[in-house]
Amino acid sequence: MPEIKNLECSRCQATISAAVPQTLCPKCKGSLYVRYDLQPLHGIAARDAIAREAASCPWAGMWRYRSVLPDVLPVTLGEGWTPMLPSRRHPNAFLKDEGTNPTGSFKARGLALAVTMARHYGLRQLAIPSAGNAAGALAAYAANVTLVDGLISDCGRIVAERSQSEGWFDISTLKEPFRVEGKKTMGYELVEQLGWEYPDAVFYPTGGGVGLIGMWKAFAELEELGWVKPGKRPRMIAVQSSGCAPVAKAFDEGATASEMWPNAATFASGLRVPKPYGDSIMLEILRESHGRAIAIPDAEILASLQDWAKNEGLFLSPEGAAATAAYGRLRASGFLTASDRVVLFNTGSALKYTDVIAEAMHLERPAGGE
Amino acid sequence: MPEIKNLECSRCQATISAAVPQTLCPKCKGSLYVRYDLQPLHGIAARDAIAREAASCPWAGMWRYRSVLPDVLPVTLGEGWTPMLPSRRHPNAFLKDEGTNPTGSFKARGLALAVTMARHYGLRQLAIPSAGNAAGALAAYAANVTLVDGLISDCGRIVAERSQSEGWFDISTLKEPFRVEGKKTMGYELVEQLGWEYPDAVFYPTGGGVGLIGMWKAFAELEELGWVKPGKRPRMIAVQSSGCAPVAKAFDEGATASEMWPNAATFASGLRVPKPYGDSIMLEILRESHGRAIAIPDAEILASLQDWAKNEGLFLSPEGAAATAAYGRLRASGFLTASDRVVLFNTGSALKYTDVIAEAMHLERPAGGE
Repeated sequence: MPEIKNLECSRCQATISAAVPQTLCPKCKGSLYVRYDLQPLHGIAARDAIAREAASCPWAGMWRYRSVLPDVLPVTLGEGWTPMLPSRRHPNAFLKDEGTNPTGSFKARGLALAVTMARHYGLRQLAIPSAGNAAGALAAYAANVTLVDGLISDCGRIVAERSQSEGWFDISTLKEPFRVEGKKTMGYELVEQLGWEYPDAVFYPTGGGVGLIGMWKAFAELEELGWVKPGKRPRMIAVQSSGCAPVAKAFDEGATASEMWPNAATFASGLRVPKPYGDSIMLEILRESHGRAIAIPDAEILASLQDWAKNEGLFLSPEGAAATAAYGRLRASGFLTASDRVVLFNTGSALKYTDVIAEAMHLERPAGGE
Repeated sequence: MPEIKNLECSRCQATISAAVPQTLCPKCKGSLYVRYDLQPLHGIAARDAIAREAASCPWAGMWRYRSVLPDVLPVTLGEGWTPMLPSRRHPNAFLKDEGTNPTGSFKARGLALAVTMARHYGLRQLAIPSAGNAAGALAAYAANVTLVDGLISDCGRIVAERSQSEGWFDISTLKEPFRVEGKKTMGYELVEQLGWEYPDAVFYPTGGGVGLIGMWKAFAELEELGWVKPGKRPRMIAVQSSGCAPVAKAFDEGATASEMWPNAATFASGLRVPKPYGDSIMLEILRESHGRAIAIPDAEILASLQDWAKNEGLFLSPEGAAATAAYGRLRASGFLTASDRVVLFNTGSALKYTDVIAEAMHLERPAGGE
């Protein structure tokens, strides 16, 4: 495992020490990335050691990539190395099932690493605004939770206040460097699971957007390391609900940042993020990758959820079903063809959504009908 | 992958062809085991190819052991190869987390293989009695479910009736050979994950008992294959709830079979099996391994569930918490010491039990108290 060389601001490129805990760039409030000296790991010999070493550590999970993660004893519940399932109906579509993570969502990756680093720094009180999955993961890794009656943006405000008044350390999305760092393992994993090759497109349900940003960081590192076969990076597709689509709206309008989405409402609670902090970084990635953002109505998300349950045996979270629905749309529109190899992310387990799915199915029924 | 040599009756040792679908031994109604010619796979070279080959197939899961499973195209959702998590507090205790399987329980393993073979045989209608987890898994792999208002034994009766009248193929626990065959992968996995060594004891929450029986079959095969380092097999500990403990009662009484448990009641629904079909096989295994059966009261199961959630960050199913509670008891009694290496099975995800856990916690509170 490498020493952290420094943290680097995603906005002004300032370099900052990782010797003490950091949140945002002290100069411009930009999100920080972790940087290492990757040169000693260059080449496929170091790459191919990963699978060999992981075989000897059965709870390795995402820590199979410890050679590109901070050199600190992990706090782990076995997160990562999730299944990449071939679709039964679409030969070039793969479903990356993050619902099998501990606490049932992809949030486990970022919070395992953030809590690992928090322990390393001696921090004792951690705070995070969450619609559910991130808080569930933080509670498992660190054991604390406070309920707020409101949207995730209300949680964010309370976290900011109490971080001041009660000494909570704020590990909100993109407001500290290590959640991105944990989530980048999804990028390493999908490339390794496709034989160290890029797919043509990645569909990612996008609330805060850290998964997408983390994967993009992974692709840059993989190229620096020489671990990925030469080829162009995948088109990145950010998937939102029509009930809360600030990034899709900004993308369509050619804007470089999003606007606060009023009256955010969708049964895909992970997508109820009215104004993601990382909007500018995301929009840049979508454009650079020749991808796009897309908003799907809840009824169409629900239909895709039922379709994949019935025909693929996969019970997806509403967020995951937004990705499968978006794949259907972009195939229908010709943006992608049947020969394009795509990875669709199911970011959480449907078992955490049985109530909202049942409610959504009930609402879809005609009054008095079956 | 090997050809199946034949099926063999666990009771009368009759050999039966696997060319057509089989249920129980046509001679004595004993459960059937799958037998192969394992000789060509003897030795550690074949063994060590497993991890190497699995690395190239990311959805391998339990199919990393395809060299000792039937040579048939799998129906898979990525089941198996679940995390083996070291306890934070007990250095020699490992929690094998089956809750990360597709549909959230260990049942995925047996049903993936049973449905794989059913497809191979051209069977179209599959039936199973279930308290929840097995039916959830079968519904995912094969897509069918019928609700019954009653205990799992009532389901069993209905399955038996309709198998006759409606042509359902009965894949009840131990009434066809392939669920045991799928679950044996837990035995291979725990041994591989401990560096191809046996632990001193295995704690297994026991309803129908197929997991325990499957693991014991795996140990026999591992020895025949020369894949496990020489040493004695683990003590097998069958864990039940005091509200439904037919195997524990039979074990304590020195009986060779169990009696139907009247008024079975426990919040650990997977343990509500009043008279398991494999009781005799299980009792033989427990005695041969110098293990035992143990019944834990629901209040103690709940306390262990809360303890492991708070102190280990692991939210166990009630069945899994029965295993952790049993470990506490057998450490306290001196049956096991701190230096004994043990594997505790969490057979399912707690996310499937939030309602019953909440209800149990409510019942535990003193009236009018917090």
